[in-house]
Amino acid sequence: MNSFGRLFRVSIFGESHGSGIGIVIDGCPAGLAVSPEDFNKDFNRRGSGAKGTTPRKEADIPRFVSGLFNDHTTGAPITILFNNTNVRSKDYTKLREMPRPGHADFVAMKKFGGFEDYRGGGHFSGRLTLGLVAAGVIAKKLINPVSVNARILEVGGSSDIDQAIEKAIEENDSIGGVIECTATGIPAGIGEPFFDSVEAMISHMIFSIPAIKGIEFGSGFKSAKMKGSEHNDNIITKEGKTETNYSGGVNGGISNGNDLVFRVPVKPTSSTHQAQNTINLKSGKIEKLEIEGRHDTCIALRVPVVLEAATAIVLADLMLQEQQIGRVARER
Amino acid sequence: MNSFGRLFRVSIFGESHGSGIGIVIDGCPAGLAVSPEDFNKDFNRRGSGAKGTTPRKEADIPRFVSGLFNDHTTGAPITILFNNTNVRSKDYTKLREMPRPGHADFVAMKKFGGFEDYRGGGHFSGRLTLGLVAAGVIAKKLINPVSVNARILEVGGSSDIDQAIEKAIEENDSIGGVIECTATGIPAGIGEPFFDSVEAMISHMIFSIPAIKGIEFGSGFKSAKMKGSEHNDNIITKEGKTETNYSGGVNGGISNGNDLVFRVPVKPTSSTHQAQNTINLKSGKIEKLEIEGRHDTCIALRVPVVLEAATAIVLADLMLQEQQIGRVARER
Amino acid sequence: MNSFGRLFRVSIFGESHGSGIGIVIDGCPAGLAVSPEDFNKDFNRRGSGAKGTTPRKEADIPRFVSGLFNDHTTGAPITILFNNTNVRSKDYTKLREMPRPGHADFVAMKKFGGFEDYRGGGHFSGRLTLGLVAAGVIAKKLINPVSVNARILEVGGSSDIDQAIEKAIEENDSIGGVIECTATGIPAGIGEPFFDSVEAMISHMIFSIPAIKGIEFGSGFKSAKMKGSEHNDNIITKEGKTETNYSGGVNGGISNGNDLVFRVPVKPTSSTHQAQNTINLKSGKIEKLEIEGRHDTCIALRVPVVLEAATAIVLADLMLQEQQIGRVARER
Amino acid sequence: MNSFGRLFRVSIFGESHGSGIGIVIDGCPAGLAVSPEDFNKDFNRRGSGAKGTTPRKEADIPRFVSGLFNDHTTGAPITILFNNTNVRSKDYTKLREMPRPGHADFVAMKKFGGFEDYRGGGHFSGRLTLGLVAAGVIAKKLINPVSVNARILEVGGSSDIDQAIEKAIEENDSIGGVIECTATGIPAGIGEPFFDSVEAMISHMIFSIPAIKGIEFGSGFKSAKMKGSEHNDNIITKEGKTETNYSGGVNGGISNGNDLVFRVPVKPTSSTHQAQNTINLKSGKIEKLEIEGRHDTCIALRVPVVLEAATAIVLADLMLQEQQIGRVARER
Repeated sequence: MNSFGRLFRVSIFGESHGSGIGIVIDGCPAGLAVSPEDFNKDFNRRGSGAKGTTPRKEADIPRFVSGLFNDHTTGAPITILFNNTNVRSKDYTKLREMPRPGHADFVAMKKFGGFEDYRGGGHFSGRLTLGLVAAGVIAKKLINPVSVNARILEVGGSSDIDQAIEKAIEENDSIGGVIECTATGIPAGIGEPFFDSVEAMISHMIFSIPAIKGIEFGSGFKSAKMKGSEHNDNIITKEGKTETNYSGGVNGGISNGNDLVFRVPVKPTSSTHQAQNTINLKSGKIEKLEIEGRHDTCIALRVPVVLEAATAIVLADLMLQEQQIGRVARER
Repeated sequence: MNSFGRLFRVSIFGESHGSGIGIVIDGCPAGLAVSPEDFNKDFNRRGSGAKGTTPRKEADIPRFVSGLFNDHTTGAPITILFNNTNVRSKDYTKLREMPRPGHADFVAMKKFGGFEDYRGGGHFSGRLTLGLVAAGVIAKKLINPVSVNARILEVGGSSDIDQAIEKAIEENDSIGGVIECTATGIPAGIGEPFFDSVEAMISHMIFSIPAIKGIEFGSGFKSAKMKGSEHNDNIITKEGKTETNYSGGVNGGISNGNDLVFRVPVKPTSSTHQAQNTINLKSGKIEKLEIEGRHDTCIALRVPVVLEAATAIVLADLMLQEQQIGRVARER
Repeated sequence: MNSFGRLFRVSIFGESHGSGIGIVIDGCPAGLAVSPEDFNKDFNRRGSGAKGTTPRKEADIPRFVSGLFNDHTTGAPITILFNNTNVRSKDYTKLREMPRPGHADFVAMKKFGGFEDYRGGGHFSGRLTLGLVAAGVIAKKLINPVSVNARILEVGGSSDIDQAIEKAIEENDSIGGVIECTATGIPAGIGEPFFDSVEAMISHMIFSIPAIKGIEFGSGFKSAKMKGSEHNDNIITKEGKTETNYSGGVNGGISNGNDLVFRVPVKPTSSTHQAQNTINLKSGKIEKLEIEGRHDTCIALRVPVVLEAATAIVLADLMLQEQQIGRVARER
Repeated sequence: MNSFGRLFRVSIFGESHGSGIGIVIDGCPAGLAVSPEDFNKDFNRRGSGAKGTTPRKEADIPRFVSGLFNDHTTGAPITILFNNTNVRSKDYTKLREMPRPGHADFVAMKKFGGFEDYRGGGHFSGRLTLGLVAAGVIAKKLINPVSVNARILEVGGSSDIDQAIEKAIEENDSIGGVIECTATGIPAGIGEPFFDSVEAMISHMIFSIPAIKGIEFGSGFKSAKMKGSEHNDNIITKEGKTETNYSGGVNGGISNGNDLVFRVPVKPTSSTHQAQNTINLKSGKIEKLEIEGRHDTCIALRVPVVLEAATAIVLADLMLQEQQIGRVARER
């Protein structure tokens, strides 16, 4: 369902065009210094407005409903709420008849029997990742000095990102990208051998981020073309430092003390200015559908900060389980 | 920890060279016809003996401890136990001093303080996947008529698999591979928008299988190089059939009624006949380590049936949650 | 932590004197008709103002943040928020030094290292049961035609409740009570033999309600004085109707189709107008503490509706697990 | 379902007359010294043979399948298996037609559609508590120096227990009893304010023990007759020691450092030598049923050690969550 984590647990809620969206963060140790300004940087990184992202801007002003007191976490659930403000009234009749290709319109109708809030993607909207980013800000503080950094490797198949974006804008189409995330400073020993391996927990979480189509750790898909003698990472210190890092920082599901490294592909934004074919559920005929409005040319541009947040949330949970973080957080 | 699932829940236990290994399957509806012979085919597929797999054979004879009565499931937990028989006594002193590259020796020592059962990989051994395969046999029956099929796409970078294996044997090295898994007949509507999406649950589970380094659904990593107008799957029937299947059968985390398709890379077996460098924890010096014994040249050859099992287990859980399977199973 | 349930899951948040309190209800099937007026009756039953309850009144106006659309549940998480309005500024210095007997002041300090929001009981406040009552309104609709009714059996040891309250007010003290809850129409077969029995789930939930000191099902503590031949409930119809109901509607942890019946004792309100001894944490000396303000003479009077809510929430979860409620709710 | 716990997690399996019964204990820290002899004392306490218990004896010989190595826990799941040996073949036709009053026969048939293993109570049998006791032995070691002790307060309404048993044997009937359990040395601060309070977790677990009809903490049902000024426990030291212990060691759901005290009623054994009325499901008529064989006159006599085990398991889980036990257990 809409929550994740064993000791550090997030529950997400809200719809794109409803009253608001938000997140409840349960299990965060008391005593962590958190002030409203701490969120600005990551909210801005997720926000739109840059070239290749939608010009539609929403003021992402958090309301801290619970769990914070005197600029510290209290140990009780932290609730962060974002009111929806930039909501355009619109006629959705056509979209109800013609599910958009690549979107969740059709599956939502099937799953929720037509009762879903379909406006602007509803509960499936990328807007809900704002809650994840908020939780990520807190998780990053909690796991400090572990640091998490994501960066775009390529968009539209090119590492010249500016050029690729401009080309896509010209072509009136959308493009995808590949993002790499690295976490440094993770102690050896977090994660579990079966089911709750580091890779399992990270991948579980990152597939909550819309548009992600895969994940690979360390050598990833390239490992399938390598030989064992090449692929094994020689251990060169008593602390477990390895010469290479094909493992991506994980052996047997457990962190080995080297950098955790993984990459994800982000699909091209489903909403484009190109007309597409889809079924008209009323007429039963295939018809052309044009999706109006302002879209992200390359949603991948906005994903790195969400990926960092997702990773930090998982690490916070695993580190708490391994008692690498105290129940009352030391000042960090 | 060592269990997975919300309504159809598996708990795995055991060590490679201990008394035995096994699995508890909780939440399986009563009334499903299950007889001992049902397991033979999948146990054989997982077993060794074929070219490219270890010549060491273990009789995989299940003991059905609980949950079956009159050749049907009872609704109580199903426990399947495998005694360990082909266990060679051996001196592990050297391995304790020199953690094997690519293996979990080092991380296990860190996590469990040296108390872990280190013999033959202990709890990290690939032998534990036998329990998964057993649970998979039951899960496949439960989700019928949904069918799950995995096949090897390539090993060692080549689709001529026989040739690639022979070359690796000649070179005395190990190789990896890529496997594709397809599930057909899944009803639209299973999976959840956030956190418990179909992709999230599948990937969580499949990273429990040793040696898997990544996963991609549908277009996967290729999506990052595609345009939105290409990538969207046009919907062409009222039942949701799409013209292409770049989505891999999932939109917004929820099954869309088309085939679920994903691929995983399997790394080359970590144990090879090539000597490697690793730290000697006693001396603090880097030394050469040769791993004796009989190894799989290409462990990927044995993975497809495990992948099918893992997939079927997840689908059983999600279908139960979506009430696509009754609480008392109709004869299947 | 602060959430409960497997398929119908509630997460509670907030503090008495913070910004607000509320609840997230996850897993509620789509299509259930819910309108704001549906909540009034149960909010009023929980509210104060009657003789024996505190004269301090708070407007319990819910804000429906998510999960409702066109007066129906959407299948996405339902978030209900209550802003705190009747909050009095006050000097808490004395209470920080002198933990109130019978309250959570001392344990909160120990658990949360002094970072807890201590104002007005903080996260421990009985005000948080308002969220439970809100979730209960929805759960009651979901389990319909199962009905849940709680009533006061006695307060202050007397079944003449008015008289007992008046006496307590005269004495300037607080009193406890016993409440009985009955659920009618539960189908046979819900609950699990081990760990998740009906009694286990109900008791887990009801101990979340502040001031409850015990629970007994059917014959309860009296069973210990009975003989087996008396205590067994003779089964008199094929549907499982029993002559007596000493079992309280549950055998082997599973509902048997008869009324679920249990009773709970509610302790006297901890805040009274009587001075008490407690440690002064600063001076290390035992001192007299008087708790000012307006208190409930008998908090038991406000508990029945909370008990009903807690019960309905558990039944909704167990009935969903047993597929007694569809994934898209029929109109109820 | 059949498992319980967040970090220290037990999963129970087996049927009374099947191949065997047992338990998987997941999440036990590595490094705890455990040897087979450690179990004897508690197995004997649970065993039968004393006056008032059934003369049928079963050799309770544990097989340690996994998770132990060199007489220490390894950190991997601990599986303990008990083969069933003293199983009498018997004709169950009559019982299938005539569900025994007070037993789970009827509800099991309803829940599992007749596929349940009905022999000797099947999965509902009190024999499964043997697994709980085994897990309790390990949990008690883990929580040391916290100690848990349960004792019988009364049977058949009398504190002269010998006399009450003899009278019941003479009358050919069964009797119930009341047991009190006390845990000493629990640090202040374990448990959670909502849903996972100490009382909630303890009661959830103890209702897994067959025949228990209620639970009360500290003052329990008596609290309902007390005044607030009497009931509050004055705090008399900086460590939180209280003058009285009406709270039973818990405030606001959280341990306060004083003894945890609770009591449970155990109903009289359902199987007695007295004939009873029940429905004949085939004929639809109410008929007399006599249950043959050897029964416990007072099952309460065997419950204290099970109650201790259940309590220790919950405390182990809560103490791990509160980081009061290390991830690698110090020698205890």
